[in-house]
Amino acid sequence: TPFTGIVPNNSPKLMDLLDDTVPGIGTYEDFNTIDWVREKSKDRDRHREITNKSKQSTVALLFSISDAFSGWLLMLLIGLMSGALAGGIDIAAHWMTDLKEGVCLNGLWFNHEHCCWASNETTFQERDKCPQWKSWAELMVGVSEGPGLYVVNYFMYMCWALLFAFLAVILVRAFAPYACGSGIPEIKTVLSGFIIRGYLGKWTLIIKTITLVLAVSSGLSLGKEGPLVHVACCCANILCHFFTKYRRNEAKRREVLSAASAVGVSVAFGAPIGGVLFSLEEVSYYFPLKTLWRSFFAALVAAFTLRSINPFGNSRLVLFYVEFHTPWHLLELIPFVLLGIFGGLWGAFFIRANIAWCRLRKNTCLGHYPVLEVVVVTLLTAFLAFPIEYTRMSSSELISELFNDCGLLDSSKLCGYTSNSGSASGSVNATAANGLGARLAGPDLYTAMWQLALALLFIPSMAVGAIAGRLLGVCMEQLAIRHHERDIFRGWCSPGADCITPGLYAMVGAAACLGGVTRMTVSLVVIMFELTGGLEYIVPLMAAAMTSKWVADALGRESIYEAHIRLNGYPFLEAKEEFRHKTLATDVMRPRRGDPLLSVLTESGMTVEEVERLIADTTYSGFPVVISQQSPRLVGFVLRRDLVISLENARRNQEGVVSMSPILFTECDPPMSPSAPPAVKLRSILDLSPFTVTVHTPMEIVVDIFRKLGLRQCLVIQNGRLLGIITKKDILKHMAQMANRDPDSILFN
Amino acid sequence: TPFTGIVPNNSPKLMDLLDDTVPGIGTYEDFNTIDWVREKSKDRDRHREITNKSKQSTVALLFSISDAFSGWLLMLLIGLMSGALAGGIDIAAHWMTDLKEGVCLNGLWFNHEHCCWASNETTFQERDKCPQWKSWAELMVGVSEGPGLYVVNYFMYMCWALLFAFLAVILVRAFAPYACGSGIPEIKTVLSGFIIRGYLGKWTLIIKTITLVLAVSSGLSLGKEGPLVHVACCCANILCHFFTKYRRNEAKRREVLSAASAVGVSVAFGAPIGGVLFSLEEVSYYFPLKTLWRSFFAALVAAFTLRSINPFGNSRLVLFYVEFHTPWHLLELIPFVLLGIFGGLWGAFFIRANIAWCRLRKNTCLGHYPVLEVVVVTLLTAFLAFPIEYTRMSSSELISELFNDCGLLDSSKLCGYTSNSGSASGSVNATAANGLGARLAGPDLYTAMWQLALALLFIPSMAVGAIAGRLLGVCMEQLAIRHHERDIFRGWCSPGADCITPGLYAMVGAAACLGGVTRMTVSLVVIMFELTGGLEYIVPLMAAAMTSKWVADALGRESIYEAHIRLNGYPFLEAKEEFRHKTLATDVMRPRRGDPLLSVLTESGMTVEEVERLIADTTYSGFPVVISQQSPRLVGFVLRRDLVISLENARRNQEGVVSMSPILFTECDPPMSPSAPPAVKLRSILDLSPFTVTVHTPMEIVVDIFRKLGLRQCLVIQNGRLLGIITKKDILKHMAQMANRDPDSILFN
Repeated sequence: TPFTGIVPNNSPKLMDLLDDTVPGIGTYEDFNTIDWVREKSKDRDRHREITNKSKQSTVALLFSISDAFSGWLLMLLIGLMSGALAGGIDIAAHWMTDLKEGVCLNGLWFNHEHCCWASNETTFQERDKCPQWKSWAELMVGVSEGPGLYVVNYFMYMCWALLFAFLAVILVRAFAPYACGSGIPEIKTVLSGFIIRGYLGKWTLIIKTITLVLAVSSGLSLGKEGPLVHVACCCANILCHFFTKYRRNEAKRREVLSAASAVGVSVAFGAPIGGVLFSLEEVSYYFPLKTLWRSFFAALVAAFTLRSINPFGNSRLVLFYVEFHTPWHLLELIPFVLLGIFGGLWGAFFIRANIAWCRLRKNTCLGHYPVLEVVVVTLLTAFLAFPIEYTRMSSSELISELFNDCGLLDSSKLCGYTSNSGSASGSVNATAANGLGARLAGPDLYTAMWQLALALLFIPSMAVGAIAGRLLGVCMEQLAIRHHERDIFRGWCSPGADCITPGLYAMVGAAACLGGVTRMTVSLVVIMFELTGGLEYIVPLMAAAMTSKWVADALGRESIYEAHIRLNGYPFLEAKEEFRHKTLATDVMRPRRGDPLLSVLTESGMTVEEVERLIADTTYSGFPVVISQQSPRLVGFVLRRDLVISLENARRNQEGVVSMSPILFTECDPPMSPSAPPAVKLRSILDLSPFTVTVHTPMEIVVDIFRKLGLRQCLVIQNGRLLGIITKKDILKHMAQMANRDPDSILFN
Repeated sequence: TPFTGIVPNNSPKLMDLLDDTVPGIGTYEDFNTIDWVREKSKDRDRHREITNKSKQSTVALLFSISDAFSGWLLMLLIGLMSGALAGGIDIAAHWMTDLKEGVCLNGLWFNHEHCCWASNETTFQERDKCPQWKSWAELMVGVSEGPGLYVVNYFMYMCWALLFAFLAVILVRAFAPYACGSGIPEIKTVLSGFIIRGYLGKWTLIIKTITLVLAVSSGLSLGKEGPLVHVACCCANILCHFFTKYRRNEAKRREVLSAASAVGVSVAFGAPIGGVLFSLEEVSYYFPLKTLWRSFFAALVAAFTLRSINPFGNSRLVLFYVEFHTPWHLLELIPFVLLGIFGGLWGAFFIRANIAWCRLRKNTCLGHYPVLEVVVVTLLTAFLAFPIEYTRMSSSELISELFNDCGLLDSSKLCGYTSNSGSASGSVNATAANGLGARLAGPDLYTAMWQLALALLFIPSMAVGAIAGRLLGVCMEQLAIRHHERDIFRGWCSPGADCITPGLYAMVGAAACLGGVTRMTVSLVVIMFELTGGLEYIVPLMAAAMTSKWVADALGRESIYEAHIRLNGYPFLEAKEEFRHKTLATDVMRPRRGDPLLSVLTESGMTVEEVERLIADTTYSGFPVVISQQSPRLVGFVLRRDLVISLENARRNQEGVVSMSPILFTECDPPMSPSAPPAVKLRSILDLSPFTVTVHTPMEIVVDIFRKLGLRQCLVIQNGRLLGIITKKDILKHMAQMANRDPDSILFN
């Protein structure tokens, strides 16, 4: 359904008229940028009309009230739907990840953990071993020990992974090509005002939800936050269709999508405040304060919906919620900053490698076989992942285990200290006597460390950071225990308590790597704060996030999202970085020196045929209207699409319109002979208040105006005469040129 | 020291020249609004110059790096200084509040609590009774019991309160008149670009710090968050003087002040994230993402500085940090919403009463005797406050007690349940048998409730809300216990646990009242979340904050800050509310129909004398420059102050300049006879890129442009001809008129 609207400053009567007669005016074509000023004016007109009517009747008053609260209702629905979907995805992914290893005899629908909970025969120490849970080898071959078992399980694991990945890629290719990738670069672009039809549609939602489960279960390396943001935005976009206020206004809809991104992060990390800040800091373009409050509401509703579904059975929102007990020491800031440096380096490296791979796939024949690519990658991942315990589990489980603080009864290998593992190692010397020996590393911990180091190679950013952090944390811990009598470690260790918390290092490492890749700062720290709940752990996280951002920025200014936006040539005007070059509007405007003159319309004196020829000869998306060619003083601006639709409409519906009919943009009709063909009056589609700058205006100010007001184009004037035009694309090309990049990489308007 | 600068788009060479020769160009007068575009251009020029130089020498490179990090260093210093000051204020206020009641014999510098800590003779139950702490009566009269003691203590209490209040008001009047009031309305105005010299100076800081302690100790009803924001902003402003980047640029300095407001709230409530959101939502005008990250850093530094000072001896940032244990029930949302309604009503009432009082003071002779007013109010407060325990304590102590969840050993009267108070009341029936009796109200609790109800009358908003909440909470609790067998309360109470948490009600009530007065939303909920640390208590807080805002907004759109801004006639363009009227630029611009023509300068052909006469005859703060009076096509815009300074400078320093000398704004000199006096060339002070709109531009768009770009004025054009001008003051007057308010209430430019 095309949604109709009008250019600003038409009277309400005219608006209704236009609404009825010329559908399509005020709409946009696919892969084009919206005009924020026009959309906001449309919304204000609508609001004004409803307010005026509400004084006339009770029904209209009720409608006006329901209209005012529809935003809140929409937020509630988005929160409920996204929370429920996220819960479903978590449960399904958990079950299917376990399906790769075996099944539960009590019921196919139990995952490993639930299966053994239901069983009464397990002890607390061996929670994950129970007779009801059968690995595939036990079930098929009947053996319960020996190398055969291992080989069969290995084979089945790879088969399932392959099946899941194959299904996922086929589904995406067949039904919803937009469902691939993380989605955040595209959502950023959409929020900045770009139109990609179908990117947030119902097919994309269905396929993305299913493939997210499949991809996570197949063990492929991906973070969940990007897809969950995409899923939440799809929900929001679909729900917008039930509210006229949002369905028919691109700017209002983008406010809702901003809130939906907050919801996505809220359910991915269980951090509603962090989600809102993520939307504000990272994704959104236009974020008025009203949206802040509504986003927060939606993010909270989603978080509580997810909690009431309770996908992890611990009444926490995410698997990796933690509580630490040991305070950190000032000297530990050194390893935290080291983790920050590591995260920054890793982020810069990851972005380059990722972009290089995408470019390779785009430019070579590799891009023609996506199914094969996925199958090969999945097979390789599964083949390498199975032997190591830490890569076999899903990445959330891995992160959860890494963040965990070792309790007394913890059976994880990562807690394989001498006291826990029971095997008194040779190194238990005097330290054991004074109570510190309990934290000396045992053989289990060493095995875990080696496996983790191997696992570093193929997992998503957060897990890489968490592993690196945990490794460093354990090293620091052992160092502090073994040298606890040295001056620098004095006071760190006391009998019966931990010296340091390796789990905190894992969390700091995860934050550093995620920060290096995404360049998030405040939102990252707040997300991690919401995971731990302790204000005192903010300082390490902040030190690491800051270092990581500085290091990564020094190696390349772009985050992974911006790099992908640039790779795809989307017209995205980054709000964060300032334009610092000393060029003027005259250097950027078209026509350049030597080019043919600017194509303009005159407010009177042109015929239908002349205008149609101008439209056919050019590809510009709009034309300035001036008083006359000789005196190019600006009257207004008319959009190509509106002009085309109006002319077609006049040819079809207005009597007597021929090629020689004059076109009038003037307010009053000039005198005409009665025999002349009737004029086509187009003042109603004319934007009488186009934005203008002078030729001397510095580009830094022009860029600022475009960003802050969300313009599509701006006219350039000198001493009252129209000289040229600057579009968003011109600005992006100019910026690319000033940064020594290819200006032709900007593909869209 | 006047800071110099230039209008945009001058070459660097010219800039240096101007810097040297004409001091004062580019500065602002007191009580005027800055031009954000110009200030930001200046900063970009400065940055460009430093970057260019940094390629030439190592020293310049080091300078460039230190310049880049100076923002972070400044944030660190602001955090440290504000945190230390806040800690000092807390300790001093605590000590002086206790001084009103008595002294410690062990040392005068101990407050009541410390005095009794140091003593060994106290039991846990009677922490606040120890022989070393002597009330004034015990010390002076020697009696330790009886009505005489009470009267003497009463008298001493009033004397001290009077002394403190008198000192405070004398100090403010003598040294720093700007130190009075909350300060947030003025800071909001300053952040929006207004200049009030001395408002954030060192005298204001010193006097505000001292008087804050005195006023809190004297028992006057005031919240601490406003003054602490003011103190933090003063610190920031003073520290800015040590960094050229911030000293010489009004826009950059305002970024720092935005961060400082976050710091102020961070130390007032111990909530760094809430502080940043407060600055974003409530105070700031221009809040780029870079500032978000830096504010967060500064807020954290301040919070940790305050914690290391540990003013409350509990290693918490604020006195009223709480931990709740009992979950809330869905049905409790009804009382929470009721509290929200109460908060909204109270907020609306408080704002009206406060504004009415201020207006009375302004318009009648009451305003001439501020010292007397304070003395009378203090005496009245002290007289009424002493008999009731809850008004005698400081408001933070009161709030802390109200938020508190009753433990088993709590000696507070508010925890005077039958089991705690030991007095088995008659109503202990069957409920006591099944373990619920422990929570039945005892006589102590009833006394506390009556005293609280009386205390409601004269205390700051947060405490009012907290009291109302606690009262409702205790009622609900008793209701639930006494009717625990009814269907609606089934499952609320279980033996050995609390039914509901009255402390949570107190917190919800406090949030509702604070929300009603200030109309904070997200920041309020986040601040309260940081105080409790539990995500599950966000929903009650949010329900109350939302209801409170809706109710209060229905009764009056303005928050207390906005009401005060309007009362004082500051030129503040609210960013939150949309301008919804259907007027056009032509309706607002000056000159109006029938007025004399717009005063313009021509780019050539005017003499020094003519210009000087124009300056003398008009009070406009700037003049458009056109090609000629006959052809009013816009060339540029020149500011009055720059013009005056330049002409004075030319008269003084340029040889041969007489009244008949021509003034030239053109690029090339027109041919002139050699005998003519030399021309005064002023193109360097001409802004060649003034902002323009057309006469048809809707005012809603004009308002949006002014807000987003921070303009001072904008020129109005029709078909290339200059027709009029719109200033920020014109817009504010127009908005006042459309809202049926007096347009002449806007006092400043």
